[in-house]
Amino acid sequence: MRSFSLKPALYVVGMLIVVLGVFMLVPGFVDVAAGDSDWRGFFIAGAGTSIVGLLFLLANREERITLNRRQAFVLTVLSWLLVAACSAVPFFFSRLNISYTDAFFEAISGLTTTGSTVLTGLDTAPPGILLWRSLLHWLGGVGIVMMALALLPFLRVGGMQLFRMESSDTQEKVVARVNQLGLGVVAVYVVMTILCTLAYVIGGMTVFEAVNHAMATVSTGGYSTSDQSMGHFDSKFILWVAIIFMGLGSLPFTLYLQVARGNVSALYRNIQVRSFVAFISIVSVLMAYWLWWTRGMEPFDALTHVAFNVMSVVSTTGFASLDYTLWGPLAVASFFALTFVGGCTGSTAGGIKIFRFQIAWRLYRTHIHRLISPNVVDVPRYGDRKLDVDVGGSVLIFFFVYIGTVGVITLFLALVGLDWVTAVSGAATAVGNVGPGLGDVIGPAGNFKTLPDAAKWALALGMLLGRLEFFTVLVLAMPRFWRT
Amino acid sequence: MRSFSLKPALYVVGMLIVVLGVFMLVPGFVDVAAGDSDWRGFFIAGAGTSIVGLLFLLANREERITLNRRQAFVLTVLSWLLVAACSAVPFFFSRLNISYTDAFFEAISGLTTTGSTVLTGLDTAPPGILLWRSLLHWLGGVGIVMMALALLPFLRVGGMQLFRMESSDTQEKVVARVNQLGLGVVAVYVVMTILCTLAYVIGGMTVFEAVNHAMATVSTGGYSTSDQSMGHFDSKFILWVAIIFMGLGSLPFTLYLQVARGNVSALYRNIQVRSFVAFISIVSVLMAYWLWWTRGMEPFDALTHVAFNVMSVVSTTGFASLDYTLWGPLAVASFFALTFVGGCTGSTAGGIKIFRFQIAWRLYRTHIHRLISPNVVDVPRYGDRKLDVDVGGSVLIFFFVYIGTVGVITLFLALVGLDWVTAVSGAATAVGNVGPGLGDVIGPAGNFKTLPDAAKWALALGMLLGRLEFFTVLVLAMPRFWRT
Repeated sequence: MRSFSLKPALYVVGMLIVVLGVFMLVPGFVDVAAGDSDWRGFFIAGAGTSIVGLLFLLANREERITLNRRQAFVLTVLSWLLVAACSAVPFFFSRLNISYTDAFFEAISGLTTTGSTVLTGLDTAPPGILLWRSLLHWLGGVGIVMMALALLPFLRVGGMQLFRMESSDTQEKVVARVNQLGLGVVAVYVVMTILCTLAYVIGGMTVFEAVNHAMATVSTGGYSTSDQSMGHFDSKFILWVAIIFMGLGSLPFTLYLQVARGNVSALYRNIQVRSFVAFISIVSVLMAYWLWWTRGMEPFDALTHVAFNVMSVVSTTGFASLDYTLWGPLAVASFFALTFVGGCTGSTAGGIKIFRFQIAWRLYRTHIHRLISPNVVDVPRYGDRKLDVDVGGSVLIFFFVYIGTVGVITLFLALVGLDWVTAVSGAATAVGNVGPGLGDVIGPAGNFKTLPDAAKWALALGMLLGRLEFFTVLVLAMPRFWRT
Repeated sequence: MRSFSLKPALYVVGMLIVVLGVFMLVPGFVDVAAGDSDWRGFFIAGAGTSIVGLLFLLANREERITLNRRQAFVLTVLSWLLVAACSAVPFFFSRLNISYTDAFFEAISGLTTTGSTVLTGLDTAPPGILLWRSLLHWLGGVGIVMMALALLPFLRVGGMQLFRMESSDTQEKVVARVNQLGLGVVAVYVVMTILCTLAYVIGGMTVFEAVNHAMATVSTGGYSTSDQSMGHFDSKFILWVAIIFMGLGSLPFTLYLQVARGNVSALYRNIQVRSFVAFISIVSVLMAYWLWWTRGMEPFDALTHVAFNVMSVVSTTGFASLDYTLWGPLAVASFFALTFVGGCTGSTAGGIKIFRFQIAWRLYRTHIHRLISPNVVDVPRYGDRKLDVDVGGSVLIFFFVYIGTVGVITLFLALVGLDWVTAVSGAATAVGNVGPGLGDVIGPAGNFKTLPDAAKWALALGMLLGRLEFFTVLVLAMPRFWRT
């Protein structure tokens, strides 16, 4: 195995950090415009971050940047960690007066598009801070789409090799293809955000609220400008706008490029999209019916709130319109289960993701068929592709690691004193990048502020592991990885 | 595929039912000796059951019994279901005055060695009923050991093909080998029960209590003759006796035959046994240390109760010495996690089982190695065997189905009105064949009596699915299974 240098990885991280520093000026200017003294923090943080990024660039300059597998793993983990560490600085310098632990938690929760917050009093918070939170969602969202497009299939993480593009095995072709698709994806993302903003304005939000919520919606993040989240606006129109755009944020972004090229059927022919839409629809209708039947809720009211909260959890956004844990034990158990589902791969959504359930189901069926008649050859297929052993194994190990990670974090949270329901739902919501958990503390009406620091760091780790699909991080923990 | 007749399966079921009917007379005679009027129920049920069994035998007589794969699946599921249905009759006819639902729940909980009970007032219950419960554990325990020895590896269920004996692919050889090993296993089981009874008597139990608890211990069942379970005796000696024999009941029984033949090292060289013992020891010591440190419990006291309750849950016995949910959230989260672990395969224990965790860990490690260097060939091994794709896939799909089953049963229990903690821990404890759940209702100090009937049937199904390792039952749900 070739020995490897960290230089190319650090160079790319430097570029990202410089860009991040520049973005910090945006909420700074907003605070200046709003006459809020908080602008100073953004300019100091922005300048400092940019300088750190430039130092990375200068110290690691090389003739030509090429990355091998191991450097790509290091780059991915390091860039998310360092970007989160820098993104925390404006929170730390703000007049919110929070610890660096809280600032880091808020930053990584934003970047991973989780949306669990430690802040209260959002309705009166400095506008720059609110915008910074939304921007973190928005940047993290486009970051993960790019990663799912370019990096994860190439690194063969969690069965993502299934989505490797034809003959994209060589790095040069991947880079060329990503350059080509990348701009398209960003364009789609920007257009989607603008449309969502407009729809929210039509629904009655101020422009500032609309911009923030649009960024938190299409990125399936979930930060709001109000402590009551979407419940603040008390508008069914706004909830349906959110349902649609959370959904759009959960579909594979490359499909939109195909639609833009005139291939509209690509979207509704995609088996992942079909299952996602069918799943959301069936669960929503069943649960709305159940609420109407057992609690006498007005049918359209029930459907709106159910569809909104189901979409919010399955898309891993984590907005709340009301406290659904008050709907009784079936709702609590259902929403806990939904925390694991997730959206489609190649989107901004987290969770286990639809395609892994589809593949697991196909493997299960093939397995049962082989139990019945061991000599009948029955190759499982996914869409028009045969599922090889490699993809199947990766997907099943992904499930194992997912549940294992939630279990380990749950035990750690219980060790530092959280009650059982908070611990298990907190671990699940962090790893799934959803946002709210269950129980009085971190439920949809709650807040992560009061958790002990150790719990916040554990949850932050869970968010990172979930967002980077575990293996990207876990390979670094193998001694063999560092052996030259 | 050959068409298949149910006759051979029904014939074997008939034999089992006749044996069961004869066994019913044992508690009947005990009631007669104790002067308890309850004896009538046992004699009526015993006679009725034997007649039903004889009718099965007569109606399905054939020249020669041979079973193909599909008939073996049907036989397995049908025999457990019908034996449970018949075993419930003495409960139904007793002066306990319970519904058939409760009687069936108690019977299947006994046969699957789960040990969840719907009965209260055990301390004053008819002795025949108490003995019948223990006998069901004892018969179910030896039944599952036989199944793991002969049937599951042959049916290739859940990775059990790993334990298929050399060149035992043909049915004749399996039958010969099982006949040979079967008597040995029964002898070991009887000796173990006698030794456990003696130890309990030395510890201060009456002979009747000792016999009952010994049968519930070596079968890792968990029924007691007291509502306070093992807490009733308030004896550390008895708790340590239970720890040892629950442990012995959780090890692969074929190893004892090797030990009896003089190959003592077979036991401590077995990788499954080593991991099981190491796991129990480490968890017990850590948790005892934690109880001593945070709650000031006397160290040996702490170790005794922790080791007892950890062994009780991991061996899937489900005795209780005290209410460990009062030890705080870490204990609750830990015991919930332990509910999934299980003992070794080829024992009376349930749960996911140690070897599957070992295999999953090896697959995980190989997977990570391949992510780091895709071209390095690295075949995972288990002991001295290579893990082929078939075994690996089976084990991972087993995890998926295990968690999925717990999830579905949890949602159903929540639907019929159980609170979330009762629902999820009830589903986990049933599927793992453990016994107690969490929360006020079904926790270690609780009882399953007050649950709605629908919940009891769902839990009974969970016990059966877990005991038969899912696939044995799930194949029957595939239309393809019945296609001729």
